[in-house]
Amino acid sequence: MSIQTIAWKRDRIKIIDQTRLPNELRYTYIKDVRQLFQAIRSMKIRGAPALAAAGALGVVLAAHQSRLRSKTQFRRQLKRVIEYLGSCRPTAVNLFWGLGRMQEVLDKNRDKSPDVLKSFLLIEARQIIEQDRIACRKMAKAGSRLIKNGDKILTICNAGILATIDYGTALGVIYQAKRAGKRFSVFACETRPLLQGARLTTWELKKKGVSVRLICDSLAATLMRKKQITKVLVGADRIARNGDVANKVGTYNLAVLANWHGIPFYVVAPLSSFDRQIKTGKDIPIEQRSPLEVTHNLFKCSIAPRGVKVLNPAFDVTPNQLITAIVTEKGLFYRDSILQGQLLRQSENGSYANRRSVP
Amino acid sequence: MSIQTIAWKRDRIKIIDQTRLPNELRYTYIKDVRQLFQAIRSMKIRGAPALAAAGALGVVLAAHQSRLRSKTQFRRQLKRVIEYLGSCRPTAVNLFWGLGRMQEVLDKNRDKSPDVLKSFLLIEARQIIEQDRIACRKMAKAGSRLIKNGDKILTICNAGILATIDYGTALGVIYQAKRAGKRFSVFACETRPLLQGARLTTWELKKKGVSVRLICDSLAATLMRKKQITKVLVGADRIARNGDVANKVGTYNLAVLANWHGIPFYVVAPLSSFDRQIKTGKDIPIEQRSPLEVTHNLFKCSIAPRGVKVLNPAFDVTPNQLITAIVTEKGLFYRDSILQGQLLRQSENGSYANRRSVP
Repeated sequence: MSIQTIAWKRDRIKIIDQTRLPNELRYTYIKDVRQLFQAIRSMKIRGAPALAAAGALGVVLAAHQSRLRSKTQFRRQLKRVIEYLGSCRPTAVNLFWGLGRMQEVLDKNRDKSPDVLKSFLLIEARQIIEQDRIACRKMAKAGSRLIKNGDKILTICNAGILATIDYGTALGVIYQAKRAGKRFSVFACETRPLLQGARLTTWELKKKGVSVRLICDSLAATLMRKKQITKVLVGADRIARNGDVANKVGTYNLAVLANWHGIPFYVVAPLSSFDRQIKTGKDIPIEQRSPLEVTHNLFKCSIAPRGVKVLNPAFDVTPNQLITAIVTEKGLFYRDSILQGQLLRQSENGSYANRRSVP
Repeated sequence: MSIQTIAWKRDRIKIIDQTRLPNELRYTYIKDVRQLFQAIRSMKIRGAPALAAAGALGVVLAAHQSRLRSKTQFRRQLKRVIEYLGSCRPTAVNLFWGLGRMQEVLDKNRDKSPDVLKSFLLIEARQIIEQDRIACRKMAKAGSRLIKNGDKILTICNAGILATIDYGTALGVIYQAKRAGKRFSVFACETRPLLQGARLTTWELKKKGVSVRLICDSLAATLMRKKQITKVLVGADRIARNGDVANKVGTYNLAVLANWHGIPFYVVAPLSSFDRQIKTGKDIPIEQRSPLEVTHNLFKCSIAPRGVKVLNPAFDVTPNQLITAIVTEKGLFYRDSILQGQLLRQSENGSYANRRSVP
């Protein structure tokens, strides 16, 4: 079975509408940038690496639809599109990274006509997509060595095919380990409030034939105490220079619990999730989302009294001390190596990586 | 506003149907023991102390409806009722404690006619109810001294009016502190899967004018890290002799987090939640509930793929090391005093408490 999270098809962006999963696998076409903005904000397309592609393809889409012949006007128009898409969700740095790469194409080719730029932008977007595919495979290989027979792996949110171009980050490691013939099982935290674990991760893992059990987020502690979890694997939305990791709310919870129970805790993320401009996790902007996600379920029925005050940040920050290692396409980085700047240097060497980011 | 969780009215048991909250405050009458069994199992009535009353009133109801004239047959019939109701939910010991007290009335009055026994049983049930009311007030007084101006109190599930006869255990402390003019605020964990925190605790606290904010269970860790929680207050379903506490799943999670972040963690529970026959938390039976509670929300829409494997224990166990103190109607018990047997001795002195329990 092939799952195609996002692609450029028939001059439009084709995505899976992830809000309809697991009940329905429906592909949908994004016709303009405004629709893309809504699709990202409403989580039809989500997952940090997938958002890099979504942002880049959004610029391609806008370029494609532009009728402007003037180089300056064309560039100005696309600059506004990049700013617009960059305002969509604040935490995952990959969105800004993808947009930044498109901006760089525009900046480096000021002498080129809109038509030439259109094809350059499409080439760049396709490169982003291809690089994500390769990065996922490399992370999977590097990470799968960590998985032992008999492992019971806990994950949160969805760091799989649906969060990337294909294969996934944390779940990519799991797919690779399965491919290598290892025997293990997975526990998926349901991941309140939007239930990406319950809806997306279990769906993916079942499709791929991986043994998975669904749990409420708060059960993780008990399973760890009973030695029913041997490793925690999560993705990342942004990694600060010191290795602090922003990821789906509940990740920090698991990191504290893993540390308390002596269980290794791994973050799996491409270098495009690394933000050279952010010193520590404290500086990572955390998206605050609608209280309705908590008080009303996805199907619009009320589960809390009208008007109750709600806190609903979409992400949290896990400090580097709680992270055993970060698995990237350049291999594993342990805390000491991160603090010594090795992740920083790798991100400098990585082509285009983090040369600029859109605020 | 008065909320009456459970009462004996017009020869029937009157309860609030808690599965309809917060959308509707509906009182319903329980007409027979089978209906009571279903009401307890489906959580129309829940909360450890309230279940003591529910069990006792169930025996009163059965006695009331019995047409048997023979003392032996009448006693045998009620014994079966007690066993039947005792098989309803396994974790909260208060149910067995309430039923045990009814059994004791039967055992002590073998020479009495069914008619006399009926009135004795009703008197005993009313005493259980009245004692719970008094115990809640005493716990509230003892516990409210712990609350300081500016406190930010985290709680899980519902340990309030709706879990007791009135006033509550953990929330009783909060009501009493408010009454005493203290200024503080409350964070309510939504408490997956059945959302007692979102549906019941916020509803109660809002009605009582207590400032409350609703959070997803997994956000607690972040709030603690940001020093937005200063105390954790929870109820209990069963307390072992060594002070290990079984309570709603997610409680152990909060206890580890509180310890990690240096935040005091208090359990508020009447002595009827103390089980002298259980040595440590490991021996407390934990109810496993339907996967549908996790995969389908209360309103029957699917939120996970069909057939996904689910773990859904309703409770977890918090080891005594993680508990700052247990607040009871006899005052506060710190870990050392519990290990020295002081809670055990108090439960021996408590009238009827734990003299017997129905397995």
